[in-house]
This record gives sequence, structure tokens and C-alpha cells, in this order.
Amino acid sequence: MTYCVGMVLDKGLVLMSDTRTNSGVDNISVFRKMFHWSVPGERILTLMTAGNLATTQAVVSRLEERTKAPSDRQNSLMELPTMFQVAAETGKLLREVIAETQTDNGARGKGRFTASIILAGQIKGMEPRLFMIYPEGNFIEASFDTPFFQIGETKYGRPIIIRGYDRNMSFEDAVKLMMVSFDSTLKANLSVGLPLDLMVIERDAFEPTHERRIEGSDPYFTAISDSWSDALRSAFHSLPDYSFYQPDELA
Amino acid sequence: MTYCVGMVLDKGLVLMSDTRTNSGVDNISVFRKMFHWSVPGERILTLMTAGNLATTQAVVSRLEERTKAPSDRQNSLMELPTMFQVAAETGKLLREVIAETQTDNGARGKGRFTASIILAGQIKGMEPRLFMIYPEGNFIEASFDTPFFQIGETKYGRPIIIRGYDRNMSFEDAVKLMMVSFDSTLKANLSVGLPLDLMVIERDAFEPTHERRIEGSDPYFTAISDSWSDALRSAFHSLPDYSFYQPDELA
Repeated sequence: MTYCVGMVLDKGLVLMSDTRTNSGVDNISVFRKMFHWSVPGERILTLMTAGNLATTQAVVSRLEERTKAPSDRQNSLMELPTMFQVAAETGKLLREVIAETQTDNGARGKGRFTASIILAGQIKGMEPRLFMIYPEGNFIEASFDTPFFQIGETKYGRPIIIRGYDRNMSFEDAVKLMMVSFDSTLKANLSVGLPLDLMVIERDAFEPTHERRIEGSDPYFTAISDSWSDALRSAFHSLPDYSFYQPDELA
Repeated sequence: MTYCVGMVLDKGLVLMSDTRTNSGVDNISVFRKMFHWSVPGERILTLMTAGNLATTQAVVSRLEERTKAPSDRQNSLMELPTMFQVAAETGKLLREVIAETQTDNGARGKGRFTASIILAGQIKGMEPRLFMIYPEGNFIEASFDTPFFQIGETKYGRPIIIRGYDRNMSFEDAVKLMMVSFDSTLKANLSVGLPLDLMVIERDAFEPTHERRIEGSDPYFTAISDSWSDALRSAFHSLPDYSFYQPDELA
């Protein structure tokens, strides 16, 4: 499994992904799931991937034209004029890779080769944008009402994002919120694992404003994980107490 | 979908279930998913069900021998000597009902008729016990290390239970914890819905100590739901702030 979150804030974009891949619980590895390309001063594009690793690696390789000699490679994403076209091109590649693998060659599985992608970025003269791309190649864009996307093991970490997200929040608060969301997920699901990759992209910066790998020993993540337990417990105890003998109205 | 939680505490058992059933989002209804039978002073048994409604209703009907005339009915659960045997008998019925429906009669679906059951109860002279019964008819029992079970849409509401549960907690705190867990789930998934059914069974009481249906207008549930948002936000802000320019060690 996997867990990735992308958020649009007024100030820009914040992205976080885990790095665990597994094929059964006895075959786990660390693979980067966040990839970015930028033309300084002009555009930055970041992908986060969930799903079959062969599929997502194939998509990224094709984006970078790694089938060609290094000197002949040309990443078409770097030339497409709009984020919408970048999303469409990525979706097309994703659908193609899945379709090739899923032809009836005797190895066909039940959706085992599918993948989803979060695409975030900005091209000069336009707004920062965030897309979720489905295995079928179509996609949706984050809007004012749904300003974040999650892929992979999304449920454990969702309630805190729903409650904590605020479009005006600072990058620092958004990172904190993501850390709490990842911590809840890590505690509940073995198939999501440290280290985490973090990227913050300020509006109109066209390069990563802040980029970090958060290892298991990271002191801030450890502090969040420890203090969140205590903070949750205090929050819980601050709630009104239940009584078996309730008046009809508490108000 | 469905959400049900059963917990073992030192003091006894606490159970909560939602009541929403749906077949698509345009066909939702309210059905009770918690059923109990007791012999005062001797035993109490409670079931909570998740999964195909026809399957779970069939299991409960067979337990009560509703195929017979009322005067001939005999609920064998009321006579089995141990909770283990009650779990085995319930599991056997569940497996049979599913197997009958899933025979190749042209209507066979992909696991659409499966169901899971949480069984809780106590028989005189023995401990209160809690089981999770699988569609295959086998089951597991709650232990010191895993003292609660969830069925249905379990993920959204799990992190808070993992962090808040304590074997020594009061019934009132356990109810509060469940309300928070249900509130997080209700906020995230339309297929889990109010009203909720709550039952508290004190050790050696052999009857429900407290039983309530929590409606959408319930003042306590509303208070929890409102104040949990605030409490979570305060908890979040009480965490250490992230800084882009971290020292290598926070400690």
C-alpha cells in the first residue's frame, strides 16, 4: 500500500508521500513515490504515485523518455503549455501502461496493475494546481470545496485532515497536519511506512521551497507522534462526560 | 456499509452499532444491527452484524427458530453451555446461510452475500467474552492485547480507539470514546448513519445495564460532535510547530 497527500493552500502546494512498497508482508522495500521536474522561473511539476510499482515506474520512465539515449531524451511534460495538458498526458500514459500489462497474456490479475497519481504544480502565468489521475486515465482537479487529495491507504488519516485543513493555513501548519495524518496511518497500517518525503512549493517559486526526507529517527516527527497521543487524550478528556442518567436536554 | 464496535473492559462489555443499510446511495434504510437475548441471572448474549442484510437477518431468524410456530421455537443459544459454543453455532449458521445463497444459481455475486458478526456476552460462572465471527464461520476471541473488535467501515474511527482505549476505563468514558469514533466515521462515510444503538453490560449483571438509541437530535452526541472539532483543533495547535529551518536535534 501507500499513503500520499497533496494540498492546495493560498500560499502554494504541500505534498507528502510514504516510501513503503510491499508484495505480501514478507517482502517490503523502500521506494520513492514522489518525483518532480522543474524549469526554474517557469514551471514545477510533482507526481506522487500509488499502486503497482512496475506500473508507476513505467509511467515515470516514459515521461522521462528513458527508453532513449540520455542525449535524445525530451520530457514532453516540460513543454506542454498548461497543467491540464500535463494531467491529460500523464493520464494517457498511465492508462496505456496498465492496458499493456493487463492484456490476456495469462498473467492477468484482478486489477493488480492499477495505479493512481496525484499531480501538483504550477506553470508561469497560471495558478498552482492539483489533480488526481485515475487508472483509466481521466482525472479530477482540486477545487475550493475539495482542496486536497489522498491516494493509497486514505481512511485512517482522513478525519484529522477534514477537521484541521484551512486554506489560509501556513505551510508549517500544513506540514504539521500532514505529519499527524501520516502518524495515524502508520500506527494503523503496516503497509504504510517511514521514511516520508515532504515537498513545499510556494506560489510563483517554480522550484521546491522546502524538500525533506523524514526518517524514522526524525526528531520532529517523533515529537509529533508522541505529543499527539497526549494531546488526543487531553482533547478526549475535555469533552463533556456521558451519563447513564441524562436529562432530556443538555442544552 | 455499517460500523459496529465491541469492547471488553474490566467492568464488562460496551457495544455500539449504526443502523444504516444501503443498496446504492439512493436506497438507504434504517435497520437495527444489534440483537440481544438474556436469561436473567444466567446469561446475556448480544450480536452485532455487518454485511448483507438478507444474510444477517436470516442468521438471526434461524437463531430464534422463526421458521417454527411461536410456541415451538427454542433458541438453542440460550442453552449452549459456553460462549465458545455459542460462537461456533452462530458461525455455523452464518456459513450455511452464505453458502445457500452463493450456490451457482445465476445470481451469484462477488462476495455480495457475506457478513461478519460481533458476538458479546457472558454466561454465569464464566468471564464476559467477545468474539468476531467471519463469513467462513470461524472466529477469533478478544484478548488482553486486542480487547476490541470493529466490523464494517472500521478505518476512520480506529485511530482514536487505538489511542483512547484503556481496559480500566469507566463505562462512561468508553461510551464517550465510541461516540467520538462513530462521529469521525459518520463525517467521512455516507454509508454509516444515525441513529446508533448503544448497550452496556456490566460484568455478572446478565442483562443490559444501559441500553439506548442515539438519534440524530441526541443532545449528548451533538455536544460530542461539536466539541470534538474544537478539542481536536486545540490539540493540533498544542503540538510543537514545524520549522523549515530545523536544528538537527530538537531534543
